[in-house]
Amino acid sequence: MTNSPAQDKFTFGLWTVGWQGVDPFGSAVRPVLDPVESVHRLAELGAYGVTLHDDDLVPFGTSAGERDKIIARFRAALAETGLAVPMVTTNTFSHPVFKDGAFTSNDRDVRRLALRKVLRQVEFGAEVGAQTFVMWGGREGGEYEGSKDYGAAHERYREGIDTVAAFIKDHDYGMRIALEPKPNEPRGDILLPTIGHALGFIATLEHGDIVGVNPEVGHEQMAGLNFTAGIGQALWAGKLFHIDLNGQHGTRFDQDLVFGHGDVLSAFFTVDLLENGFAGGGPTYDGPRHFDYKPSRTEGMDGVWASAAANMETYRLLRERAIAFRADPEVQQAMAYSGLTELAQPTLSDGETTADLLDWDVETMQAQADRLAERDYGFVRLNQLALTHLLGAR
Amino acid sequence: MTNSPAQDKFTFGLWTVGWQGVDPFGSAVRPVLDPVESVHRLAELGAYGVTLHDDDLVPFGTSAGERDKIIARFRAALAETGLAVPMVTTNTFSHPVFKDGAFTSNDRDVRRLALRKVLRQVEFGAEVGAQTFVMWGGREGGEYEGSKDYGAAHERYREGIDTVAAFIKDHDYGMRIALEPKPNEPRGDILLPTIGHALGFIATLEHGDIVGVNPEVGHEQMAGLNFTAGIGQALWAGKLFHIDLNGQHGTRFDQDLVFGHGDVLSAFFTVDLLENGFAGGGPTYDGPRHFDYKPSRTEGMDGVWASAAANMETYRLLRERAIAFRADPEVQQAMAYSGLTELAQPTLSDGETTADLLDWDVETMQAQADRLAERDYGFVRLNQLALTHLLGAR
Amino acid sequence: MTNSPAQDKFTFGLWTVGWQGVDPFGSAVRPVLDPVESVHRLAELGAYGVTLHDDDLVPFGTSAGERDKIIARFRAALAETGLAVPMVTTNTFSHPVFKDGAFTSNDRDVRRLALRKVLRQVEFGAEVGAQTFVMWGGREGGEYEGSKDYGAAHERYREGIDTVAAFIKDHDYGMRIALEPKPNEPRGDILLPTIGHALGFIATLEHGDIVGVNPEVGHEQMAGLNFTAGIGQALWAGKLFHIDLNGQHGTRFDQDLVFGHGDVLSAFFTVDLLENGFAGGGPTYDGPRHFDYKPSRTEGMDGVWASAAANMETYRLLRERAIAFRADPEVQQAMAYSGLTELAQPTLSDGETTADLLDWDVETMQAQADRLAERDYGFVRLNQLALTHLLGAR
Amino acid sequence: MTNSPAQDKFTFGLWTVGWQGVDPFGSAVRPVLDPVESVHRLAELGAYGVTLHDDDLVPFGTSAGERDKIIARFRAALAETGLAVPMVTTNTFSHPVFKDGAFTSNDRDVRRLALRKVLRQVEFGAEVGAQTFVMWGGREGGEYEGSKDYGAAHERYREGIDTVAAFIKDHDYGMRIALEPKPNEPRGDILLPTIGHALGFIATLEHGDIVGVNPEVGHEQMAGLNFTAGIGQALWAGKLFHIDLNGQHGTRFDQDLVFGHGDVLSAFFTVDLLENGFAGGGPTYDGPRHFDYKPSRTEGMDGVWASAAANMETYRLLRERAIAFRADPEVQQAMAYSGLTELAQPTLSDGETTADLLDWDVETMQAQADRLAERDYGFVRLNQLALTHLLGAR
Repeated sequence: MTNSPAQDKFTFGLWTVGWQGVDPFGSAVRPVLDPVESVHRLAELGAYGVTLHDDDLVPFGTSAGERDKIIARFRAALAETGLAVPMVTTNTFSHPVFKDGAFTSNDRDVRRLALRKVLRQVEFGAEVGAQTFVMWGGREGGEYEGSKDYGAAHERYREGIDTVAAFIKDHDYGMRIALEPKPNEPRGDILLPTIGHALGFIATLEHGDIVGVNPEVGHEQMAGLNFTAGIGQALWAGKLFHIDLNGQHGTRFDQDLVFGHGDVLSAFFTVDLLENGFAGGGPTYDGPRHFDYKPSRTEGMDGVWASAAANMETYRLLRERAIAFRADPEVQQAMAYSGLTELAQPTLSDGETTADLLDWDVETMQAQADRLAERDYGFVRLNQLALTHLLGAR
Repeated sequence: MTNSPAQDKFTFGLWTVGWQGVDPFGSAVRPVLDPVESVHRLAELGAYGVTLHDDDLVPFGTSAGERDKIIARFRAALAETGLAVPMVTTNTFSHPVFKDGAFTSNDRDVRRLALRKVLRQVEFGAEVGAQTFVMWGGREGGEYEGSKDYGAAHERYREGIDTVAAFIKDHDYGMRIALEPKPNEPRGDILLPTIGHALGFIATLEHGDIVGVNPEVGHEQMAGLNFTAGIGQALWAGKLFHIDLNGQHGTRFDQDLVFGHGDVLSAFFTVDLLENGFAGGGPTYDGPRHFDYKPSRTEGMDGVWASAAANMETYRLLRERAIAFRADPEVQQAMAYSGLTELAQPTLSDGETTADLLDWDVETMQAQADRLAERDYGFVRLNQLALTHLLGAR
Repeated sequence: MTNSPAQDKFTFGLWTVGWQGVDPFGSAVRPVLDPVESVHRLAELGAYGVTLHDDDLVPFGTSAGERDKIIARFRAALAETGLAVPMVTTNTFSHPVFKDGAFTSNDRDVRRLALRKVLRQVEFGAEVGAQTFVMWGGREGGEYEGSKDYGAAHERYREGIDTVAAFIKDHDYGMRIALEPKPNEPRGDILLPTIGHALGFIATLEHGDIVGVNPEVGHEQMAGLNFTAGIGQALWAGKLFHIDLNGQHGTRFDQDLVFGHGDVLSAFFTVDLLENGFAGGGPTYDGPRHFDYKPSRTEGMDGVWASAAANMETYRLLRERAIAFRADPEVQQAMAYSGLTELAQPTLSDGETTADLLDWDVETMQAQADRLAERDYGFVRLNQLALTHLLGAR
Repeated sequence: MTNSPAQDKFTFGLWTVGWQGVDPFGSAVRPVLDPVESVHRLAELGAYGVTLHDDDLVPFGTSAGERDKIIARFRAALAETGLAVPMVTTNTFSHPVFKDGAFTSNDRDVRRLALRKVLRQVEFGAEVGAQTFVMWGGREGGEYEGSKDYGAAHERYREGIDTVAAFIKDHDYGMRIALEPKPNEPRGDILLPTIGHALGFIATLEHGDIVGVNPEVGHEQMAGLNFTAGIGQALWAGKLFHIDLNGQHGTRFDQDLVFGHGDVLSAFFTVDLLENGFAGGGPTYDGPRHFDYKPSRTEGMDGVWASAAANMETYRLLRERAIAFRADPEVQQAMAYSGLTELAQPTLSDGETTADLLDWDVETMQAQADRLAERDYGFVRLNQLALTHLLGAR
């Protein structure tokens, strides 16, 4: 295993290291960070790329002339460092105009403005060679069930996403859209609150073939959901287009801790899935390992870079342990004992029909149930093997 | 407004009033309840129908001969009372054989047994005229990420559901399958944890046209999700096939309280959606209002029937208030002010293209953003109107 | 029942109506609100008083001279309107200096500064006649267990609170301190996360006699706890010194909705306890009904005042229903049936000893258990009576 | 470091390995386990002791004669293996009679019966040399705020606990009572939901000197609370009398996983506190490390013993890593940098008064705030050091 940037594919949002520490109860604790400095520092630390919202680089309100200069300077830094921009996204949540949403605002003019802002950023993404266009609808939702027509909201959401997807196809940008679910915050309830809701929504799109998901560890855990299971479903459905790694402590506000600084056993299994794939084979993920975290508000600039490095160190350690886990003969034996690999076998035999299945009478079924109930699965032992691998104790 | 059973469409699971009060820390507090008595009592209380798992009526282990007698007696009670059985479902969770799941158990023989049990219950459902076949995969899942191959699990789940759906189609049973999501309990994490995950899963099925969802109030709220928003997405997607009404207090164990005994403001908006539909029109729900609750363990048999009646009383009260809410001119004015109805308007004008949208320069966009940001939505006032309607104060 | 301000005792924080809508993902949506305007508007709406942090009125960084003018103008508005200032509090969370806490910051100089800031505000509170001094330690805590010595932190917290309490006593300010618990946000975990932790902490103080709690609806519900039960314990312990009313949807970020716009059935029971006291008598609460909420970010200034009014309207409606609930003979009968009033009776008889109790042999105990198990409590019926009262349907 | 049972002090409840797997949706998957077999197997695995409810050893309903035989046989097994019984507790939750609680049941006769049952178990505890008497009031609480008079409930709870404590003192049993908090399940809301509520309650007791807490990892985490912080407060208050170690995934049903199979980073800090104490010194814990977990329902008897061993293996690994963590010079440097040790210093200097503190004018305070705000704490780096120690990577 090497740790080359191109193989690690570690990427960071400009907004992560650039977070100044404004939270609902406190003001900025760190100065504005020059994106060009971020590019250089992240490159030195071993990152593969950076990602950004439109406003991260070019603050909303910048004149067109100034914008060109900012972009040129940014691209020069990319060229100098070799950093890629594999993903871009749009800020449709900070400006007051988006207070009731962007694509699903009750105000049609706001929806139209949002669409314009997003399309402009698609063009920018194409310019810088992004393969993924992330869309987090953080303001799409509401605080009160009565303030949103959910049918119309989904209809408008669909119209918006399909319009963007068609635009990408029409211009052969070769980009794919990744929707980022989140249950709540800043809105009381956000439309597409989980990976599942996004997958269900995508199934209704005309251009759903280029639309997938960008799940974030903390977002799923804010709903108490198992992140590895969630990306498992997305991966199986061919829809895991991008991923946001960070740390969270369950059902509370969005913490955006360093990856591994939340539920690290879950993080282990997430890395295991990303690196080793399903035990029985199937689709795999080979996109960026994108860290969407916030350096804690207690940190100065040294802490910002230390925390960026910590994300990568943790990932590498978990990767090493996940690979050793799968290679361990005792683990393989325990997996076999648990029936893990048996699950890949179809339930029906080749050519078998439901009529064939129904040839048993009720007594036969009952006897079979009692007999099969004797089997145990040894899951605890398998999990303890995983834990000891995680702890570097095997 | 009448309250006739056929118009109310109130239905109850046999397992609800029949719950004996066994919980993780305590034994039964009430005697076994004869399903025939339940039929009679529920009919007297004004219910439209009953629903059941196979084992609710015919305990697992009953001989074939005994089974026929039990069913005949039950059908006689239905005939006598006029109660319908609009939905049936299968118990694939109580017997120890299902400890690692049914359709997704790591043990192939268990999967095959589960399929047999389910198909038998489909036949029973067809016999008694059920239109909906609910499938709650309460044991499909795991406690440890390493004990389940999520790819294979979804593959097997898909195989199982498609097999059942094909069986229904092949026999022209005219039934539809409704998957019931739940985030956890009894398993640590359940596959298809939310409405969204079920919708995403259904999109991958071969026979997904006859597969929808059966969301339960408490199950979504156990993940901190907004129930009304969730069924809104399902309804919009044409997949709200059935519904389980009850009460819950957020992210904790599954409480199965009486409908309205949890978050009653949310219940109001749920009834508002079921009765009045989306503000801007669209698909509506006209299936049973199914109560899936548990009479508290502190209650005797009188409390069982009082609690059953309470579900219906609450629903009727909420329905009355929801209808008055929509009819109130002040509410209509507040809805218009909030832009609620504006959301039904497409974002793009007829024939408009993305090229048209992109004719604005950045300064125009910024000016427009600042101008539109002035708009306010009056959501709090609208919600207060809803609350005062709920409280019967208007 | 009248609705006079002095009897209603409705109070509002200046920071509530003055909230500009800055959240973790968005900037201000409303202009700065002049505290003097707030005083006038709240008086017109029927409020009894206003409350404030030091910085709400006099922004941190204001010169001493300017400060005097601001305060004089504010006090003139109070005099003009008759509004009281029954409570004041200190902002020890917004300035970056408090990023690791105030009384428990790892930095001793920060702790000393915090103490100075708090003592100054105690003096201000005494000047304006406040009876309660609220202390919310929103930054006391941490994100990582390893970054805080919990023993030392509690030691410093105790030192700080005791110092303030002694200062109040020394100067005969006649004020009482009310600690405000919160589980998390902005810190990952906050010291004194719940009412209970605060009560436990207070028991260790030297001057605990003038220290109680200021529970907030949403803060307890962020931990999934029952607010009414929590204030019940505080009231019973003689420690409910103040209260913050608002709305919240369970375990998530701090929503600060209008009172009743969260769990309104719980709000009903909260008002029932505040207005009617324990069923069996005991300590009662007669302090301000303080609304600590935020007008949603979707609202303009009209919405700010409408939302302020909504809090009071909801409280009055719940009060009316709670009084009718207790007066209803059917409710009283159901309460008696449930044994509610029996609970006030001591378990032991007068003069009875443990030796007396132990005269039963095991068989007698078992027979008694089986006999008593027959009793049911009728709680569901009682709760349905409460619900129908809440809904104005009785 | 040795691993002798007497130094490890690992103990297990008979009900843990003996759990048959009955859950709210499924029946027993494992046979009844003979307590004598548990004693032998746990001794072989290296445990120091066993703990038990009265009914774990002597099922409720056993005759007095049979009871003596059972106890004699159990004590013989203890003698043979050298296992201690450092803690006992009473089952006041399984029998239907306790459906509305034990010490706080609305029914006075139930309260009296509960007191008898508890006192009998105190006598048993004294016989077997238990030092700790745990009391979990799992049924003390309610589903509906209206069904319980919280004032009277706390009054009765206090009466009950004080009666038991006085009984212990009167008989010189040398035992201490440890109250076990839990937020909910099986009741909708349990009185004394968290460590904090228990500490607050204890402060009201007459005999509170011998009453402390028995916190359980999962119980605090069910309320989203930080377990290490919670036991930190209890330890500081001199009230950590016993501890229940297990694993849990946040705000959901009570999972009782193997210790470390939930949030293992939190478990690391818990062990760090138990083994190394507060960074700045203070009270320490030297009682049993008691595992209160359930072998997953998917396991057979082999899995039961493997899971018991897993608890101990995890604890030992975490202990080893926690000791190395504190000994690491880089960690010590990072701790110093973070101000961790500075927190033990009093905020006021010797002899300093509040008058001394108030000698600063507002400008001096502001300048000091801005100056001190420059300090950073390096918490993320310190946490990453902890994580890498946990992962055995340093």
